[in-house]
Amino acid sequence: MGSDSDFPVMAKAVSVLKQFGIPYEVHVYSAHRTPAEAADYAEHAKENGFGVIIAGAGMAAALAGVLAAHTTLPVIGVPLSSAVLDGTDALLATVMMPSGIPVATVAINGSKNAAYLAAEILAGSDEALAEKLAEDRRKQTEGVLKKDAMIQEKVREL
Amino acid sequence: MGSDSDFPVMAKAVSVLKQFGIPYEVHVYSAHRTPAEAADYAEHAKENGFGVIIAGAGMAAALAGVLAAHTTLPVIGVPLSSAVLDGTDALLATVMMPSGIPVATVAINGSKNAAYLAAEILAGSDEALAEKLAEDRRKQTEGVLKKDAMIQEKVREL
Amino acid sequence: MGSDSDFPVMAKAVSVLKQFGIPYEVHVYSAHRTPAEAADYAEHAKENGFGVIIAGAGMAAALAGVLAAHTTLPVIGVPLSSAVLDGTDALLATVMMPSGIPVATVAINGSKNAAYLAAEILAGSDEALAEKLAEDRRKQTEGVLKKDAMIQEKVREL
Amino acid sequence: MGSDSDFPVMAKAVSVLKQFGIPYEVHVYSAHRTPAEAADYAEHAKENGFGVIIAGAGMAAALAGVLAAHTTLPVIGVPLSSAVLDGTDALLATVMMPSGIPVATVAINGSKNAAYLAAEILAGSDEALAEKLAEDRRKQTEGVLKKDAMIQEKVREL
Amino acid sequence: MGSDSDFPVMAKAVSVLKQFGIPYEVHVYSAHRTPAEAADYAEHAKENGFGVIIAGAGMAAALAGVLAAHTTLPVIGVPLSSAVLDGTDALLATVMMPSGIPVATVAINGSKNAAYLAAEILAGSDEALAEKLAEDRRKQTEGVLKKDAMIQEKVREL
Amino acid sequence: MGSDSDFPVMAKAVSVLKQFGIPYEVHVYSAHRTPAEAADYAEHAKENGFGVIIAGAGMAAALAGVLAAHTTLPVIGVPLSSAVLDGTDALLATVMMPSGIPVATVAINGSKNAAYLAAEILAGSDEALAEKLAEDRRKQTEGVLKKDAMIQEKVREL
Amino acid sequence: MGSDSDFPVMAKAVSVLKQFGIPYEVHVYSAHRTPAEAADYAEHAKENGFGVIIAGAGMAAALAGVLAAHTTLPVIGVPLSSAVLDGTDALLATVMMPSGIPVATVAINGSKNAAYLAAEILAGSDEALAEKLAEDRRKQTEGVLKKDAMIQEKVREL
Amino acid sequence: MGSDSDFPVMAKAVSVLKQFGIPYEVHVYSAHRTPAEAADYAEHAKENGFGVIIAGAGMAAALAGVLAAHTTLPVIGVPLSSAVLDGTDALLATVMMPSGIPVATVAINGSKNAAYLAAEILAGSDEALAEKLAEDRRKQTEGVLKKDAMIQEKVREL
Repeated sequence: MGSDSDFPVMAKAVSVLKQFGIPYEVHVYSAHRTPAEAADYAEHAKENGFGVIIAGAGMAAALAGVLAAHTTLPVIGVPLSSAVLDGTDALLATVMMPSGIPVATVAINGSKNAAYLAAEILAGSDEALAEKLAEDRRKQTEGVLKKDAMIQEKVREL
Repeated sequence: MGSDSDFPVMAKAVSVLKQFGIPYEVHVYSAHRTPAEAADYAEHAKENGFGVIIAGAGMAAALAGVLAAHTTLPVIGVPLSSAVLDGTDALLATVMMPSGIPVATVAINGSKNAAYLAAEILAGSDEALAEKLAEDRRKQTEGVLKKDAMIQEKVREL
Repeated sequence: MGSDSDFPVMAKAVSVLKQFGIPYEVHVYSAHRTPAEAADYAEHAKENGFGVIIAGAGMAAALAGVLAAHTTLPVIGVPLSSAVLDGTDALLATVMMPSGIPVATVAINGSKNAAYLAAEILAGSDEALAEKLAEDRRKQTEGVLKKDAMIQEKVREL
Repeated sequence: MGSDSDFPVMAKAVSVLKQFGIPYEVHVYSAHRTPAEAADYAEHAKENGFGVIIAGAGMAAALAGVLAAHTTLPVIGVPLSSAVLDGTDALLATVMMPSGIPVATVAINGSKNAAYLAAEILAGSDEALAEKLAEDRRKQTEGVLKKDAMIQEKVREL
Repeated sequence: MGSDSDFPVMAKAVSVLKQFGIPYEVHVYSAHRTPAEAADYAEHAKENGFGVIIAGAGMAAALAGVLAAHTTLPVIGVPLSSAVLDGTDALLATVMMPSGIPVATVAINGSKNAAYLAAEILAGSDEALAEKLAEDRRKQTEGVLKKDAMIQEKVREL
Repeated sequence: MGSDSDFPVMAKAVSVLKQFGIPYEVHVYSAHRTPAEAADYAEHAKENGFGVIIAGAGMAAALAGVLAAHTTLPVIGVPLSSAVLDGTDALLATVMMPSGIPVATVAINGSKNAAYLAAEILAGSDEALAEKLAEDRRKQTEGVLKKDAMIQEKVREL
Repeated sequence: MGSDSDFPVMAKAVSVLKQFGIPYEVHVYSAHRTPAEAADYAEHAKENGFGVIIAGAGMAAALAGVLAAHTTLPVIGVPLSSAVLDGTDALLATVMMPSGIPVATVAINGSKNAAYLAAEILAGSDEALAEKLAEDRRKQTEGVLKKDAMIQEKVREL
Repeated sequence: MGSDSDFPVMAKAVSVLKQFGIPYEVHVYSAHRTPAEAADYAEHAKENGFGVIIAGAGMAAALAGVLAAHTTLPVIGVPLSSAVLDGTDALLATVMMPSGIPVATVAINGSKNAAYLAAEILAGSDEALAEKLAEDRRKQTEGVLKKDAMIQEKVREL
């Protein structure tokens, strides 16, 4: 993430990764304030055993693109909303990448989905993880159906 | 893709996949006009040997999300611009997914990057493909540097 | 509605339906988390005696479109605002439907008008309901004129 | 429609109505230039046997709302794009109606869907029309599947 | 104004009118809920001695345009912000009028300037009012220069 | 107007002024390139016999506001679209004026309505002009009704 | 700055200037309420020894452009957010300047960066200041790396 | 610039630099495809005798920010419009920089102003250049006044 102030949002990605038992590292590297460290991290990510990089940043969110510029691992970008503009600046700065250097962009503040997407990517060579994802999806469905059952009571009370 | 009129843009994704030697299928399935076929395709994509799904659609672009709803494979969404709004409708309809069902969104009309991202994902378990990606990246860099050299002549002519 | 967190807004639609004596069901079905249930519900809505479907959803609001894909009953879409973007994402994802599969879209968070529109639609074959609507309209007019009268006092106090 | 210059777009609605055998009238009435005629038309539409009103207008598109103010028939609004802004002005001016006076809004320039929606509404008390709609939907599905078949050839040529 | 909930904002216009000694009436008339009263008011405004009409409305803000449709007096529109969209809906619905029916639009929530503009218009045939406006402008300038002087102290304290 | 390239659009305002027999001057003064001349013109406009100023400008359209800063005559702003952004930059730069210094803003490229509004303002002390405006309005209404009649033929040909 | 209410934001620029030991003046001058003073200040800024002008303003933020119109010193514009629109109005009104009259625009509410940019500009002829900037940059980098170290603890606690 | 396809727009900056006799280099360096070269160039720009860097880029325009991350020289960003979005993506990606790393942003496609701004910055320590700028400004004013004279003829022909 580009700033430690992004942690409350990005911590949700960590929770999902933990839920799926996926090992991870968390860093505060800024595309603008620590460009060398950010570049270096991305450049060696593959040889250091990482399979995916998740980058969360706000405003002129260059971080995901800068990391993507230094690796051919999949880079997932999380546009973060800041004090103004509701994250539209970060969304466009993250998603509108030039041909050849993709960033897999998720929703504004969508850190949980960044982790889900990372899990789906890593599951390509990890059948146990794939099964965990399928199980989680079933639970999501069940969760909605339970809420559907519960809403019936609320409706009767109206 | 959601309509055959999307083919001129989406064909660029096919070219990139061919360049990397990645086998693929191309289909016209609409989230709104052939919902059953779209759902069915996504549901069986994994057992049919696919590793990634790319979905290109415009306007109220539900296709990527609907496919993602039926699989835990990574789904890459390409928002396509149509007659009005420059693809902002498709971008938001593709990227703003709820937690638990991610869509890896690329730039508006960014079909080439959808294929690049697919290649990066598949390269996680295919070292030969990973090397092709690294080689392609080196060529991209060389290409820009060649253009940098060429621009020197143009500048002299100003 | 796509999530039980949408209930506070969508409950206003229920109130209007009750006011007009229109029977209804309320469900939490998600286009992305319970796609089969959503599709199934829409597919059998007509034979189950429904005349209109109202769908409220936020973000990449695919719900109304997905329901419309499975029925030729009129589907009314209510774009819901969420944490960012003020509902513009849901508005575009709901209203920009492709030709042949319409969604009757109302204002962002306009759940009351979804119910009013449903009433207007059902009144096509229910003259008693039509008269209730006409009566309600007269009361709306009276209500504004009463407020006009009341504002005269406030103005004098300025 | 608010201006005769809107006819090329709105004529597509007429074609769909003809396809379904729905009788119709077409008028050029402007909310701003012929407010009395527009109001009068809406006020007497029900007693004149109409079941739905479709209003297409651009810019500060008040027409649909003004018609809706004078009737409790369902009013369908088609926001039309004009020289600038891509129809976002017309979309917001059409869809953001206050509670109690709904306008069923379709996509920018979505005149075909306005007619489809009108047909779905009228089909509530016309089973033959309902069957025509169901048949049309099946043809839409077949049409996409045919295009899916045809795209296979194009792909082989790439 | 279109609703009594607009009064807190529109009351600022009243204060400016009082400051300049301009007689006024305040009404709650809705383009959608009391279209006849709104039309009637505008139609007779000139013969009733009014020189300008100010219309404040939010969302699909048709009020100013509808009043303008029934009079050739200058109509000033105040787009009001509501729960979502920050008044961009009302701004576009107020300002994007078709040729021949102008609305003099001021800033979102700019009710004070609506009254200032009304005063400037009426001053065309009222030299005393023109002088009051000139005097007010001089005071505005003085006010800013006083604040400029005061800021010097604040700066020293930094 | 801020640039002579704005003349094709602003010439439509001249046509309307001529139609109503309103004397006028046309100038190219830029808020940024000839600030002294623009300020001077506005400052002496009233004593030079002008009743209204119309300012057309694009991009960071400061012209209307700068003129308004130097006069208490009504200033009408016409936001002009330029190569990008469809005039949204000019619209916001023209309409969002601070309290006390109003600009009467018309539609993007709405130069005709700027002249109509000027006529309505000047008609406050010119009954002959007021009658011309009323007559013009009647012709607008007739014009739409004629088009309504003509559209009936086109519809029959469909 | 255009109003004393802008001071809380603009004071951050003052802090940065003080940190770098750059002498400064702070003024409240409005492009619309004190146009003469604003113009005069810019016109004499160079002969009064200033090297850069920073202008912070909101809404139809003409201040930076108006100052730039009266000097060839670099003018830095800070678009300020106000009650609605999140500063997009001020951003466009500040940045979209016509050719020949540039305004160096920083982020919405980016007053700190306005001061940093001023420092960078002045450092062109002040090597000691240039070194302070380089030192500050190193500290920024260290600051981020410290936060990166600290985040490791937070992550362990998750 | 980020791509040689940006040259037609950026060449206008070169023309202005030549007009003022300012020595320059032109390069095609991409933040995403040649990140090392871009970083290296910025890092050594000051010791190589440059006083300002101008960066033109489109879409997720990270170039100006990435260059700014590697130097404390003033960096001027030119957001370039591309196939969709009219350059709003590039504008936000260029201007919304985090505190401490400013980018002096000019208008979308405003390459000429980038050069003007560079000239103004360099003029801080080059009085001859300052005088050239003042002279150019006088010519701009004269140019507009000439156009004002010419427009009088066009107006007579109307």
